[in-house]
Formats: sequence, structure tokens, C-alpha cells
Amino acid sequence: MNRRAPIFLLTDFGGSDPYVGVMKAVILARAPEAAIVDLGHEISPQDVRSAAFQLMAAAPFLPPGSIVAAVVDPGVGSSRRILWARSAERQYLAPDNGLLDWVAHEEPFLETREVSARELWLDEVSSTFHGRDIFAPVAAALSRGLPAARLGKRVTFRPRVPFPEPVRVGGGWRGVVLAVDRFGNAVTNFKTSGLKPGVRLRYRAKDLGPVRRSYSEVRVGQALAAAGSWGFVELAIREGSFAGRRGARPGDAVHVR
Amino acid sequence: MNRRAPIFLLTDFGGSDPYVGVMKAVILARAPEAAIVDLGHEISPQDVRSAAFQLMAAAPFLPPGSIVAAVVDPGVGSSRRILWARSAERQYLAPDNGLLDWVAHEEPFLETREVSARELWLDEVSSTFHGRDIFAPVAAALSRGLPAARLGKRVTFRPRVPFPEPVRVGGGWRGVVLAVDRFGNAVTNFKTSGLKPGVRLRYRAKDLGPVRRSYSEVRVGQALAAAGSWGFVELAIREGSFAGRRGARPGDAVHVR
Amino acid sequence: MNRRAPIFLLTDFGGSDPYVGVMKAVILARAPEAAIVDLGHEISPQDVRSAAFQLMAAAPFLPPGSIVAAVVDPGVGSSRRILWARSAERQYLAPDNGLLDWVAHEEPFLETREVSARELWLDEVSSTFHGRDIFAPVAAALSRGLPAARLGKRVTFRPRVPFPEPVRVGGGWRGVVLAVDRFGNAVTNFKTSGLKPGVRLRYRAKDLGPVRRSYSEVRVGQALAAAGSWGFVELAIREGSFAGRRGARPGDAVHVR
Repeated sequence: MNRRAPIFLLTDFGGSDPYVGVMKAVILARAPEAAIVDLGHEISPQDVRSAAFQLMAAAPFLPPGSIVAAVVDPGVGSSRRILWARSAERQYLAPDNGLLDWVAHEEPFLETREVSARELWLDEVSSTFHGRDIFAPVAAALSRGLPAARLGKRVTFRPRVPFPEPVRVGGGWRGVVLAVDRFGNAVTNFKTSGLKPGVRLRYRAKDLGPVRRSYSEVRVGQALAAAGSWGFVELAIREGSFAGRRGARPGDAVHVR
Repeated sequence: MNRRAPIFLLTDFGGSDPYVGVMKAVILARAPEAAIVDLGHEISPQDVRSAAFQLMAAAPFLPPGSIVAAVVDPGVGSSRRILWARSAERQYLAPDNGLLDWVAHEEPFLETREVSARELWLDEVSSTFHGRDIFAPVAAALSRGLPAARLGKRVTFRPRVPFPEPVRVGGGWRGVVLAVDRFGNAVTNFKTSGLKPGVRLRYRAKDLGPVRRSYSEVRVGQALAAAGSWGFVELAIREGSFAGRRGARPGDAVHVR
Repeated sequence: MNRRAPIFLLTDFGGSDPYVGVMKAVILARAPEAAIVDLGHEISPQDVRSAAFQLMAAAPFLPPGSIVAAVVDPGVGSSRRILWARSAERQYLAPDNGLLDWVAHEEPFLETREVSARELWLDEVSSTFHGRDIFAPVAAALSRGLPAARLGKRVTFRPRVPFPEPVRVGGGWRGVVLAVDRFGNAVTNFKTSGLKPGVRLRYRAKDLGPVRRSYSEVRVGQALAAAGSWGFVELAIREGSFAGRRGARPGDAVHVR
């Protein structure tokens, strides 16, 4: 374990309350040398699917040895479990609510455990802020080299919200918008690497043409399907917002033919 | 003093201007090894009371030796003083405008000084950005072990906006909403540990029942009074927003009987 | 080169997507000891002029040796170049779209290069996220002491959106609002140090009086022209928002007489 393996935080805690700062305080109190990096805290409150997408998208770029604490947790305080999972490259902590399902689809888990060893947690555990009381001290302990067996017993990882694969429809495929980003780009579930040359994308009965390598292949203001930076086809408008102009939202159907 | 004692920043500077980044730049220029942690920068502009709440809430979780620079400062450039205060565990820098009053209520100050030694400040001090020109270089100096006596003369700490204790009313107590968080939870001034078992909460003539240990004790969508994560009773809706549905705001009355 | 010279990031990536976190991940994978500081990520999407202003404002406060990666890049994926530039004190990476023009006006560049050596980039370079694929690994390499000559060939720096100097008009000067901050202050292009004592500011035919040293020289709620913290005259309202009340925006005319 790299002593400086960074701890990445992904939450829906936002920036207007001290939740994130206090998670970092708890980590630093126990692992003063830890490098803590914000993967993001602006997930819509309790939007587990967005968190699952962002984690899947970001994971391949996190340094080997990284520890991710992902806390989007509508079931906090209920009997839902907290999971620790290890892939070949990284470790993950998250509620057992489907948050890890999409990253597991891309980066198979080699070992999964329930996080249940109370001696690693803060002395007092609230029923509403496990990010501070459980995730932070456990992430700190892992960054200092705690053997995973100390976290709790091994469990079987069972996806709850499996990754939505494109579906065969007639002579083509029906996919779906996975996420919409700040720029209004709509990320689909079509992998750029999986599409045959020459296929065309369609959204709401409107042809978007073939998958482009770059926005600059179309004129400013034109809609296009582009090879996105996360490995998926994205629907976009050059120097504009596809979601803003077309009202695209996660879950919308997209067709390939 | 721990050489890696983190410096926590709490401001109303937001993220759309380079104010926070420049504060960090000034700190790092003088204390390159300092760990700087955002406690939060989304306090509403000039909302000293919100900052006082957040500082009180977060303080117990900050590592011993931490330095907090809290800058919500409507009086910047006037003759208002800047204070340094030390509790048994931590050091604080803030304008003398009440920002430190609530944390002082929970964590008594052992020593308070006026921050007046100009040789510690930037050479040019603007009249509008003391976060950069005074707070940042002074925090950097403290993190490197500067003796507090060098900051300025000792002064007596006088609260300006004392913590609002619940008030006896008839057979019960009248309290107040201290803050509303991103999730719409309304934090009251009733300490969870101070309430007798069996008491019930009331907000705007509507009974919220007894204080629950966990949201999962009520059904999804139901309002409740819960033992919150900062040690105070919070008004909430399971998997919903209490403030959004009930319009709760800081200052609203809450009753216990 | 200081081994801990911080890397400052200025982008329009916002906080709701993992773009910034992934840039940091790529940097840390290649330079685990790097100190990474957010200068800001809330630039309006593709607003190069705002980024140019913020960079110019912040630059004098960044520690000597700092590396700035500034990514506001509407032309990403087109044939636009990426520039590296060095002043006496700092290094900059930015698209060749005018982003560096205003900082260059204040802090002359001693050397400029095109960033073209592909062996420094990620193996796969997307056409939409050069922040991750080019800026991050190049910044990491520079922070570890890479000689600049390895980046690409020397080029001549040519401003594209030159800094707008005030213009002589009748017996006075016409300037412009450069930026509006979170507090509603409108930063003009009049340098505080360049104005003669006694001059008065005018905005939309309304007199704002002489340049004040401090907000406290006027009463609460009154509009004023103040010596701002970036070295420029700012239009403000004491304990209020000038932009909110007067509708001021970048590009608006301001007069001095």
C-alpha cells in the first residue's frame, strides 16, 4: 500500500454545509499525511445513479492504490450495509445501495466485505452522518495500511441497479442517456469502441449523423454525436448545450442504426 | 504545535471568484507544507450567524492543534478588530463580529488576542480583502509555530450574538431553528442529550412526535424530529426536505413539551 | 524548481461532474507529492474573458515557481494550440485563445512554447477533455522539474484579446467593467494607482464620487467607487450588491473625470 495513496471523496453533501470539511477533518486527525481529493460533492441529494455513473467514469484515472469513499446514502441509519470492495487497482467504500454497481461492471471486484468492525468507527455514531462517523475513519485506517480482513466479514457482491446495456431493436440498438454534464452534453450507454463504423445516432426521431471524433467536424451551434471523453458516445451541440436545447435527461432513449 | 496541523478555512467567498484560491496561495507561499482544508465557502454573503453555527458544529471534529481562519466580514475595512482565540484544543482567527460566539459557548476560550502586529501581514493591505492580506499570512505564521504573543495584545472576549438557549414557556420550552442544511433539515437549539425521554416536538402547531434515533423509525415522506449529527434535534422528512415542504428558516420557533 | 511548487487549476468545469477530480487524479498518479490548489472552477462555461481576468488578478499572489493550468477551452479538439509560457516568477499552461493575454499584460512572458510533445500526454487523448489528457500530465511533469524545452518548440506570444486600456474622452477617460464578483462588486479597468487624486467616477450618468479607501467612508446601502483588492477601482454598495441593484455587467462603460 502506497503511504500517500490518495483518498477520493464522492458525495451528495454539497458545499453549503460543513459536512465535507468535517469528513476531511476526521480523516486528517487519524491519517495526517493523507492526500484527500474531491471527486465531487454536487451529486443531487440521494441520486445514487448519478454517483454510480461518475464513479464508473472516473475510476480508470485514479492512481493505483487509491481509496474511494462514496457516500450517497438515502438509507443512512437504516439496516443497509456499508461495503468495502477491492478491484485489481483500487479500494472502494460505499453504501450497499447500487452505488458500486457500474464501476464493478467495468473493473471487476476481487473481494468484497461488509464494513462492520465498530472499533474502527468514531466512538459515537450518529444515525444520519455515516460519512463522518464510519466512512472517514475507515478510509483513514485503510490509507494507513489496515488489512481489509479487519473491516468485517467477506460478503458476495450483488448488483442492485445493473449497468443498462444497449438492447437490440429491429435492425439497430436502443440505448439510454446515462448522465448530463455541466456543459449540457448527454452521455449515452453506447461505448465508442463498440460501434461499427458508419452507424448513425438518433434522438427523438432526429438524426444526429455518425459518431464524430471532434466537435470541430460540425459547425458552431450544430448538434452531433461525439466520441466522449469517458469512452461513451455523447450527444452535444458545438459551443452550446444539447440538454439545454433538447431537454435531454438521464433515462431518455437513444437509437443507433 | 504539530507541524502539519491543518488550516481550516470558513468563508462566504464562494467558488466563482479567485478569493479562496488566492488565500491558499498566500498561505502556501509562507508555509509550503501546510495542509489547507475547506470547511466551507458557501456561507451566504455576510451571514455571520450561519458561519457561527457551522463553526460550532464542526469544531469538535477538527484535529487538536488545528488553526481555523473564519472570514465572514461585513465590517471589513472599518475599525472592527480581528481576533485570535485559543481553546484547549484549537486556535481561531475571525473578525470580532460574533462569528466566534457560538463555538466559544461550547469550547471555552483560554486566551484571546487582537490581531494587530502589522509585520505579519502582507506589505500592502487592502480595505476589502483581509482574508488574503491578514488572515492568510497570520494563519501561515501560526502553522509554523509563531508564539501567539506576537500577534497583538490580550483582550477580553465579549460575545456579541450569544448562543440562543431554549426558553421556559408554560409547561415546556420554546427553542429556535439555528440553521437549515442542503437536505432541508432544520437544526434546532435543543441538544439531544438535554431532553427528557418522552418529550414531543411541535413546529407551527403541528406535532412531530418524540425525538427519533433514526429516520427509519418513520415511513418515507413523513416528518419527524430526529437526533441530528451535530448533537442537536433536527426537524426532517424521511427522504425529503423539511425546509422545502414546511418553509422552515433560521429563527423559526420550535416547541418542546 | 521547488519540488513542492504548487499546481493551480483554473477551469470552467464546475463541481457537478468529476472533471476536476479526475484532473487531480492524473496529476497525483504522476506527481504524488504535488500540492494542487483550486484557483476556481466556476468560470461560466467557455467564458475565456472571465478566466483571463481571474488569472491576471490572482497571479501576483501565487508563490514563485507555481505552475498554473488554466482550461477554459471552447476550441478543444480543433486545431487550436496549447501554450506554455514562463514569466520571471511563474509558469502557465492554457489554450491559445486569449486566456493568457491579460496576465501577460501585467507580468511579461520571457518564453513561450507550443505544447506538442505527445510522449508527455496520456496514451489516449480524447478530443473533448484535454484538461485530463494533456494539461494534467504536462503540469505534473513540470512540477517534477521537466525542462521546458521538452514541451515543444518556441513560439511567439501574440495576444488575441488585448487588455482594454481606458480611453481618453473629452476631458476625462472612458473605462469598462472587467468583471463582477459574488458580492456584486463591479471591477473596472481603472488602476487605483493610476488615478489622480480628486477624480470622480460616473456609471450610467450617475456620480459615484471620488475613489474611497474603504467602504466605511459611506453609509450602509450607499453606492461608491472603492480601491478594490486587485488593484483596480471597483463599483460597490456598502453591505449590498452593486451589480444586483444597478444591473452592472462586464463590458459596461464607466467614466472618470
